[in-house]
Amino acid sequence: MIQGIGAAAGVAFGKAFVLPHWELDLPESQKDAVDLAREFERLYEGIRTSKNEIEYIKNEFKEMVGDEESHIFDAHLAILEDPVFMNEIQGLIERQYKAAEVAVKEAIDHFVTMFDLLDDEYMKERAMDIKDVGNRLLKHLLGAPEVTLPSDTQPYILVAKELSPSQLAHLNPSHVLGIVTMAGGKTSHSAIMARAIGIPLVSGVENRLEKPIQTGDYLALDGEKGCLYVNPDTEVIEHYRSLREQQLQKKEQLQLLSSVDAVTKDGFSFRLAANMNSLKELDTALHHGADGVGLFRTEFLYMDRQDFPTEEEQFQIYRQAAERMAGAPVVIRTLDIGGDKQLEYFPLAEEENPVLGYRGIRITLDRTELLHTQLRAILRASKHGQMKILYPMISSVDELKQANAVLKQCMEELDGRGIPYDRDIEAGIMIEVPAAAMIADMLAKECDFFSIGTNDLVQYVLAVDRMNEQIASMYQPFHPAVLRMLRTTVDAAKEAGIPVSVCGELAGDERAIPLWLELGVNQLSMSPLSLLRVKHRILNTAAASAQQEAKACFTLSSSTDIEDRLSRFALAQPS
Amino acid sequence: MIQGIGAAAGVAFGKAFVLPHWELDLPESQKDAVDLAREFERLYEGIRTSKNEIEYIKNEFKEMVGDEESHIFDAHLAILEDPVFMNEIQGLIERQYKAAEVAVKEAIDHFVTMFDLLDDEYMKERAMDIKDVGNRLLKHLLGAPEVTLPSDTQPYILVAKELSPSQLAHLNPSHVLGIVTMAGGKTSHSAIMARAIGIPLVSGVENRLEKPIQTGDYLALDGEKGCLYVNPDTEVIEHYRSLREQQLQKKEQLQLLSSVDAVTKDGFSFRLAANMNSLKELDTALHHGADGVGLFRTEFLYMDRQDFPTEEEQFQIYRQAAERMAGAPVVIRTLDIGGDKQLEYFPLAEEENPVLGYRGIRITLDRTELLHTQLRAILRASKHGQMKILYPMISSVDELKQANAVLKQCMEELDGRGIPYDRDIEAGIMIEVPAAAMIADMLAKECDFFSIGTNDLVQYVLAVDRMNEQIASMYQPFHPAVLRMLRTTVDAAKEAGIPVSVCGELAGDERAIPLWLELGVNQLSMSPLSLLRVKHRILNTAAASAQQEAKACFTLSSSTDIEDRLSRFALAQPS
Repeated sequence: MIQGIGAAAGVAFGKAFVLPHWELDLPESQKDAVDLAREFERLYEGIRTSKNEIEYIKNEFKEMVGDEESHIFDAHLAILEDPVFMNEIQGLIERQYKAAEVAVKEAIDHFVTMFDLLDDEYMKERAMDIKDVGNRLLKHLLGAPEVTLPSDTQPYILVAKELSPSQLAHLNPSHVLGIVTMAGGKTSHSAIMARAIGIPLVSGVENRLEKPIQTGDYLALDGEKGCLYVNPDTEVIEHYRSLREQQLQKKEQLQLLSSVDAVTKDGFSFRLAANMNSLKELDTALHHGADGVGLFRTEFLYMDRQDFPTEEEQFQIYRQAAERMAGAPVVIRTLDIGGDKQLEYFPLAEEENPVLGYRGIRITLDRTELLHTQLRAILRASKHGQMKILYPMISSVDELKQANAVLKQCMEELDGRGIPYDRDIEAGIMIEVPAAAMIADMLAKECDFFSIGTNDLVQYVLAVDRMNEQIASMYQPFHPAVLRMLRTTVDAAKEAGIPVSVCGELAGDERAIPLWLELGVNQLSMSPLSLLRVKHRILNTAAASAQQEAKACFTLSSSTDIEDRLSRFALAQPS
Repeated sequence: MIQGIGAAAGVAFGKAFVLPHWELDLPESQKDAVDLAREFERLYEGIRTSKNEIEYIKNEFKEMVGDEESHIFDAHLAILEDPVFMNEIQGLIERQYKAAEVAVKEAIDHFVTMFDLLDDEYMKERAMDIKDVGNRLLKHLLGAPEVTLPSDTQPYILVAKELSPSQLAHLNPSHVLGIVTMAGGKTSHSAIMARAIGIPLVSGVENRLEKPIQTGDYLALDGEKGCLYVNPDTEVIEHYRSLREQQLQKKEQLQLLSSVDAVTKDGFSFRLAANMNSLKELDTALHHGADGVGLFRTEFLYMDRQDFPTEEEQFQIYRQAAERMAGAPVVIRTLDIGGDKQLEYFPLAEEENPVLGYRGIRITLDRTELLHTQLRAILRASKHGQMKILYPMISSVDELKQANAVLKQCMEELDGRGIPYDRDIEAGIMIEVPAAAMIADMLAKECDFFSIGTNDLVQYVLAVDRMNEQIASMYQPFHPAVLRMLRTTVDAAKEAGIPVSVCGELAGDERAIPLWLELGVNQLSMSPLSLLRVKHRILNTAAASAQQEAKACFTLSSSTDIEDRLSRFALAQPS
């Protein structure tokens, strides 16, 4: 048995397919005979093609696993727009008369070496990203063939030196049973992606192997414990086979729950809705029994385009969502760009701290024409199902009043055009800025519902950027300050008699169920892939004892203690 | 009368001195005859000299006006370390064989043109910064003489096309009575600095002048209203003279208050302490009657050096502060780097959102040797006066316990070395992360006092970067959510019986006095330059009516309404 790093849970066994380690060969540099204009044209063409490919991979990946982790590809796209990287390449062509591919190769080497030198996990990860994107660009410039994985053979376990996020995004879980990489760790982008796709991954085995794994070797691995067997005996294989069977059975049992109501053993019922980025996820949401769409993040409708979507384009999308949800509520969040989300055709000034910057409703209340177009589209769709409107990043009553005033204008515009809409459409707000939680009582008087966005709320309350790997351990959703903010918000909603839902990642974390029962939250919205898992847990929970547990958690002052206590409670439940 | 933009308040009259518009002439580019190594040596030497100069200007400026706004020069230093800007210059030398000065000039022109093109206030300001820093570097490479202002003449009013922050930092208010600039507005760095130094400034008059102002013209200006008179009649001059007299008298009367206690008309007394960055500010603090040092920001002791200051070096500084404060408390905040503050010899990874990143106690609890050295130095100094310890960026009880454990170890170390210290030294925490305010009751059990840092607290609660000019209007210290966080914190402190002080900019804002009276805060710490102004206001306040006013503010849901109401109350008080 070889002990590697357990980077993505799950059991796999089967024949190895070893990915050849692939280095691109460069032609000799053409110092004199170069046509500058032609090289630049080739470079820009390569960049365009690469961008399109990455966009395509990103969308494919999102379709497969939802929004989670697709930001990795935004980081890749950003590299192709990074002025430092691009200046370097352009400089090499313009000033040293290098061919585009030579310039790209030298620029990659330069930055990779530089970042690697810094001996910092985060920088090494950025180096890996540059290599991934740069190699893609290089491939186009060289006209090199795409390295493809066999798809006509038996399913196999993929073995590679390292896998980049864009290689991983292509993997089809029905062909690739598991992955073994020589390098990498638990927190690399690739590990995060393998977990999202659901392929077991054991990494970091380079120095543990007696001899290199060959294509055709029989492998068995446990991606949770990090165990790897090369050509094991029948006993090991049988053991892994039965583990795998159990996992599959469990998955099938879960699927049976899709049409069951989410009710605790003692009768407390939840409404479990889906978070969505595009219509593509509707199928998964319905397949997993979503009680409506709790959060439709519309920024993705604005991306990968040349210009803002028109009212008609948006209307068609919202209408389809409403119709397919057949009367179940569909909550549309208005455009939430800025922060880490940018639109190519709507450049925003660079910011020192974009997460604390010009984003969400702050932008759309400045550029009200954007809000007008979107609200009219939502209103028009409201005749085709149950639509609700959700404003992001609200931090004051003034902002909410302004947004409501725009909504009123939109209704009047539609009245003027004689277009019907749901006059009783509800408009609610995200509670994600701490200020909003603190004045939830004041805000509750001006809106119809709250949706708590725990992801942003946690990062603002704790002053911890959730994307900053250096302080990842400080991003604590179970921090007592967060729990208190949740309580303040829910109490204000109850007092005002408006419903409250939770739509951040915490909603998909089974360990948080006792908190919802204690607080009195019965609407959760989460990734479609989490719905059945959470429902299964709710069905097996006794609300009375869960509430007891949560009450105790509210008295604890340490996030770790709270998390430990809730984890232990979750594990002790029958499953 | 010419109507310009009132950019820095105050009245001035006197003769004009027109600063010649200064453009550096470049030698012809030396394409072939260049010695690369020599050019690089010249470049690095120029950068070193420029950095030293900027550091010097920054310190001079800080000595003059305190910490406020000196971050402008940190931005300038950052330009000299900016990889994009430096790569561009190096590339021009290395690849195009340009002389260092030509490369610098071309790089400046490139970036200034690029930023100017973006038609964005923020970017234009950055362009101005690059020009300022770049010209300084260029001046050294060309050996050009420093443009100096006359100091042996009568005081004058300075007239310029535009003034950069580093030109402004040199101005001596006793020589320069006022400033007129052709370009610029109210929010430019230069305007911010003119206000900090206290020189009246009228800007943006370029297109309002019938003919250019000449050196020797007699000018009169009001930097609040933006009025400018060129060669006015005696009546105008007399009017401005009497306005100026009134201002001076008021200043003298204020100074008389330095030894008076800060007590409201009906007997509520405040303790007004000074915020400090270095020993240099002790004089100003004492001159303005500070009741101790409420916040000694020690990060500046760590800057402009080659390595961390030793225990002995720190001890000497803390001891002097303690001794000169003669028994009044001196609160030393432990190292708070990260965010926008970096040390040259302790590089930190670049962060997407540094304000939500690895900073303050997060760093010193990782690198405990830094905390050990500093705490030992403070403990040793505690025998020479009344010292207190203050931990920055605390967001959990766990962190506070860890810090306290380090303090205990340090005490044992000193016991082992037989060195005496104040065994009852108090250790408190900054309340600046929203989480800390939310769990203030839990934190109060583990520390001796709270110090509320409103600057960071406001930006986290509202999710608004206070340095982001694009959303400057959203940075609202009087936001109802902020008021409630203040109340939560103060109530928790009262309940636990520990004192609470406020040390952010809000402490120096007279309009906030009713809030402190209503909340029951009687310790404020502020820039030494604000002490007398705030004390004057307290002496003229009736606590009873102020509290009534504040009570009403706590019921308002709009930040603007609260600010308006407090401003009106302040204006209605006798002055």
